[in-house]
Amino acid sequence: MNKKRSCLAIILAAGEGTRMKSSLPKVLHPVGGLPMAAHVMAAADASGADALALVVGNGAEQVRAALSEVPLRGAPAPEFFVQTERLGTAHAVLAARAAIARGYDDVLVAFGDHPLLESAALIEARARLAEGAAVAVLGFRPSDPSGYGRLIEKEGRLAAIREEKDCSDEERKIAFCNSGIMAVAGGSALALLEAVGNGNAKGEYYLTDIVEIANSRGLPVVATEISPESAFGINNRAQLAEAEAVWQARRRRELMLAGVTLVDPATVYLSHDTEIGPDTVVEPNVWFGPGVRVGSGARIHAFSYLEGATVESGALIGPFARLRPGAAIKEKAKVGNFCEIKNAEVGPGAKVPHLSYIGDAAIGAAANIGAGTVTCNYDGYAKHRTEIGAGAFIGTHTSLVAPITVGTGAYVASGSVLTQNVPDDALAFGRARQTTYEGRGKALREKLSARKR
Amino acid sequence: MNKKRSCLAIILAAGEGTRMKSSLPKVLHPVGGLPMAAHVMAAADASGADALALVVGNGAEQVRAALSEVPLRGAPAPEFFVQTERLGTAHAVLAARAAIARGYDDVLVAFGDHPLLESAALIEARARLAEGAAVAVLGFRPSDPSGYGRLIEKEGRLAAIREEKDCSDEERKIAFCNSGIMAVAGGSALALLEAVGNGNAKGEYYLTDIVEIANSRGLPVVATEISPESAFGINNRAQLAEAEAVWQARRRRELMLAGVTLVDPATVYLSHDTEIGPDTVVEPNVWFGPGVRVGSGARIHAFSYLEGATVESGALIGPFARLRPGAAIKEKAKVGNFCEIKNAEVGPGAKVPHLSYIGDAAIGAAANIGAGTVTCNYDGYAKHRTEIGAGAFIGTHTSLVAPITVGTGAYVASGSVLTQNVPDDALAFGRARQTTYEGRGKALREKLSARKR
Amino acid sequence: MNKKRSCLAIILAAGEGTRMKSSLPKVLHPVGGLPMAAHVMAAADASGADALALVVGNGAEQVRAALSEVPLRGAPAPEFFVQTERLGTAHAVLAARAAIARGYDDVLVAFGDHPLLESAALIEARARLAEGAAVAVLGFRPSDPSGYGRLIEKEGRLAAIREEKDCSDEERKIAFCNSGIMAVAGGSALALLEAVGNGNAKGEYYLTDIVEIANSRGLPVVATEISPESAFGINNRAQLAEAEAVWQARRRRELMLAGVTLVDPATVYLSHDTEIGPDTVVEPNVWFGPGVRVGSGARIHAFSYLEGATVESGALIGPFARLRPGAAIKEKAKVGNFCEIKNAEVGPGAKVPHLSYIGDAAIGAAANIGAGTVTCNYDGYAKHRTEIGAGAFIGTHTSLVAPITVGTGAYVASGSVLTQNVPDDALAFGRARQTTYEGRGKALREKLSARKR
Repeated sequence: MNKKRSCLAIILAAGEGTRMKSSLPKVLHPVGGLPMAAHVMAAADASGADALALVVGNGAEQVRAALSEVPLRGAPAPEFFVQTERLGTAHAVLAARAAIARGYDDVLVAFGDHPLLESAALIEARARLAEGAAVAVLGFRPSDPSGYGRLIEKEGRLAAIREEKDCSDEERKIAFCNSGIMAVAGGSALALLEAVGNGNAKGEYYLTDIVEIANSRGLPVVATEISPESAFGINNRAQLAEAEAVWQARRRRELMLAGVTLVDPATVYLSHDTEIGPDTVVEPNVWFGPGVRVGSGARIHAFSYLEGATVESGALIGPFARLRPGAAIKEKAKVGNFCEIKNAEVGPGAKVPHLSYIGDAAIGAAANIGAGTVTCNYDGYAKHRTEIGAGAFIGTHTSLVAPITVGTGAYVASGSVLTQNVPDDALAFGRARQTTYEGRGKALREKLSARKR
Repeated sequence: MNKKRSCLAIILAAGEGTRMKSSLPKVLHPVGGLPMAAHVMAAADASGADALALVVGNGAEQVRAALSEVPLRGAPAPEFFVQTERLGTAHAVLAARAAIARGYDDVLVAFGDHPLLESAALIEARARLAEGAAVAVLGFRPSDPSGYGRLIEKEGRLAAIREEKDCSDEERKIAFCNSGIMAVAGGSALALLEAVGNGNAKGEYYLTDIVEIANSRGLPVVATEISPESAFGINNRAQLAEAEAVWQARRRRELMLAGVTLVDPATVYLSHDTEIGPDTVVEPNVWFGPGVRVGSGARIHAFSYLEGATVESGALIGPFARLRPGAAIKEKAKVGNFCEIKNAEVGPGAKVPHLSYIGDAAIGAAANIGAGTVTCNYDGYAKHRTEIGAGAFIGTHTSLVAPITVGTGAYVASGSVLTQNVPDDALAFGRARQTTYEGRGKALREKLSARKR
Repeated sequence: MNKKRSCLAIILAAGEGTRMKSSLPKVLHPVGGLPMAAHVMAAADASGADALALVVGNGAEQVRAALSEVPLRGAPAPEFFVQTERLGTAHAVLAARAAIARGYDDVLVAFGDHPLLESAALIEARARLAEGAAVAVLGFRPSDPSGYGRLIEKEGRLAAIREEKDCSDEERKIAFCNSGIMAVAGGSALALLEAVGNGNAKGEYYLTDIVEIANSRGLPVVATEISPESAFGINNRAQLAEAEAVWQARRRRELMLAGVTLVDPATVYLSHDTEIGPDTVVEPNVWFGPGVRVGSGARIHAFSYLEGATVESGALIGPFARLRPGAAIKEKAKVGNFCEIKNAEVGPGAKVPHLSYIGDAAIGAAANIGAGTVTCNYDGYAKHRTEIGAGAFIGTHTSLVAPITVGTGAYVASGSVLTQNVPDDALAFGRARQTTYEGRGKALREKLSARKR
């Protein structure tokens, strides 16, 4: 779509965001586990932009570092332009002058703090340019328009953007408001931007002024409507939470319509790259951090926390399971309550049912790991690996001091501390014998009880 | 109510449900832990039906197996009729011809994918028949009627059901819509159903056609209003989640009005058979799977997961507790964080406070189970039992290798692996002595640190 | 504000609350972890009241005990007056006759079951008295006024409070309703209250009658509007849950606007005294019981449960962590999954990453606590302390039998049970050696498998 016209998307990401009350630059606060500006980049990318120009300022280096790695489908890696002074939106756009000057059919201007911007909104704006507009302003209809600039349309053209304080009573009734996002024909862009002045109360250069300038030059200016969500800018953390909620609701619905059961969708937290197969059931209260892929027909019980993990078809996870990066749970394997798996493979049909920590390990197919098993992967300095063979049986309360290998079909007695490899089919013990003293329990109780008094 | 009139309820449960994108037949997808069709069966049962006929088709065997065990209060076990071809709703109803032909005063037709159907709706429909109607159609007022057939009433009679595409502008304004659910006088039912033809675009036999047929024969046809929820059919998993939410809200409210505190009701997940006594406090984020009974004055802390368990009065559960089937927590007992109890009794006043797995066991009154205690109930082949006497003290990190008995008042030292029974009042050890090497910790650190470099 | 005028706030807290179906007096049911009447006391306190009079009856002793310790900023500890018979609101207020008779400029009457009452509402009412009113009734506009008494205003005065059943059709349309809360000029209060009769159907003395009495005496009576929330009274547990939700939403928003990220605010449960610093991120599903303070830049992962704990800046908590009273997590320390900390300090940069119970202990800076470490702090009779030095390394599955001290830089081998102190830099073992029997695992399997058959 719009493939024949070349396009530059300029994303303004220089603002301070003081109401966030944060040391993290506003545009890096995440939505769905991805910096909010990355969502704007993705929307621009999906609208067919050939180049992305990010105008940065506040925390410029941190923003550049975080956003230069954002994966894009069509566009190349973004360019960054530093706006050293904060003199208004038109001034910000001109920080990317070098990019504009390369000459594109379409120049989009969007905001890095609008994480819900849909690519459809940008595609629509570009369509207006393709139809001959010089400027296409994106408008929306908020539930309460007060405070927003109104879009004054006349005979299909956008005659003016009127700030609320300057509106007549009649104009104030207009529900169609300025989002600030716009598309400008590349051939007119620089001339229009350079014509913007700062003769206003704040002494700033306002991008919206190009509407008046273009109209005065007889260039066609139009408005096109987008959803209120696409126009939703984040200024504080309450709004950040609202955006997160909308984003989550969108993704949850997509997954449900594709055949995933979410028993209470509002309590399942997805990341931008979460993948879940059909007929998988996700109970309430499950957290999917970045990098999780789940197959089909799996069940993720309530109170599970996954990140950077793969879960194959038919596997059972939780309740109260934590899968950390590098966890690979194979077909029909089970990771049960109070278990943590990190950088470890749990083989097909293997079971880690209770109270275990499995890190830097590989567990063979159909092995059974007893309650309270711990891989002692860290010696205070380095991490070491544990290998457990297929069909092995690890008794409860076993410490596996890595590096260590337990062979196929081996059997480890409960309560063992293992420091040496166990061959295939061997039986290993590492525990003391039981001693029982008749009557001494009672005597001890009496002593302890007396001491307390 | 309506007890004098005999009643057959026909529940259509043959549909494919392709939009569920599932290998599980649609009517078996659960709401409140029970297949959605079972809710419809329960509503028919509660409306006084003497017989239930389930018309099955897609996944017939699986549906039959799942629904034949649904507990009913009044009606006998359901009969199943297989609709081999899918030729429309009237055709589906006629699959149960043998049941209809037995002769009932009232014949109800409901849908297996309407899990929120209230018995009051069916009772209302039957009341219309008792008043002399031949056909009573259940209508509802959706928030947005577009797409639904409209109920055209004239002088207290239902004149027609008009599909939206056939509506006049005036008729399209009617908010009263067809749910598809109806009650038919048993004496007229077969004749009406057999008169339905398939001379329409899809070549199907539509149940709604009996309205026109009955009217043409001068039989009285009426409409009666039910709630939009009763008319809510499930076609995809987003709708399934909506139905679950409504069902949960109903049950939560019932519990609260009966004296249960739910701190955040929206986060407490109930099953169809969950019972909770008054003055029990349930903190947020608690999952009640099927088969849970909780007494009065108990406290279920946040992040607890219960199924098939009983919790007696004054007991404390969680946070982060999992009670599995067969867990029986007696009066004032405590099961604390990161504890799993399976097929085990925790005696009155006994405590399992931390990080323990108690399976296939009985713990006596007032016993104290140390952190990290594990019953080693499984040897890879069979499960074995652990018995712990009243007042016993089990030290931390104890492995109880079952079958094993620890006597009343016995005392087990921390870190023990027990493989032999411990008599009453005895003291048992099963651990190695401590050895301490001065300075060797530092030496080891230096070695490990050097190795890492 | 209103500081010059003296003020007595009378809070009616004697009701039975039968619809709560509880053995706990209604006004003690908590909102935000504090009895609901305590919220009313706090609002009165914040409105500048010089004295609080609580009229108690049902469960008087229990109510007195619970409310006499509520912390107040300006007012002294409350006085309690027992209403022995329940003869209506005016009768209840007169139970505090001795307090009224002391002479105050303003007498406020509020209800102990209105936990969302805002101090602004009371300040507003007192302002009306300061302007010359003898009685100021607080009115509100509910979404559905049916059932409420209507406030009939004439020429800026409150002419009457009309019960709904006595309303004309015109009056029934009035949306402005009586909350029951009022302010009365101290000089008129006793005379007005004593003039109230009980010549009505129930034979009760109604406080609202003073409106008519004051008007009949030519005293100025006015109404002033408050939010529906301030007028929200609790009668059952569904309403209790509604109040909790509103209260939580208020506090969550305050925290977010102050710079705390709540990823899903609806799932973070705060207490009345929860403090969290800016740039701390709280993931979904976190419970803050009373007495929690969190510094800035910390991260509280999902599924964490905190009460009575302090978490310093940059610390990482959870997921699945429980901090109990007396837990003090120092700067940049980490408490990970399935860990419970009780009455224990975790030093700066120290790590308790997995499956541990640390109780009655102090862990030095940068110490590393292995998975499955347990402090055996309880011997069945008394609690004992564990001290772990800075930089110590505790191997996995260690039992520390308290009282015990592990020195700075000491190293404890995995699977040890320690009963003796470990000097600085020492290496301690307390475990058996491993024995491995070739082929015996297979033999054991065969035996177990045969036994099962």
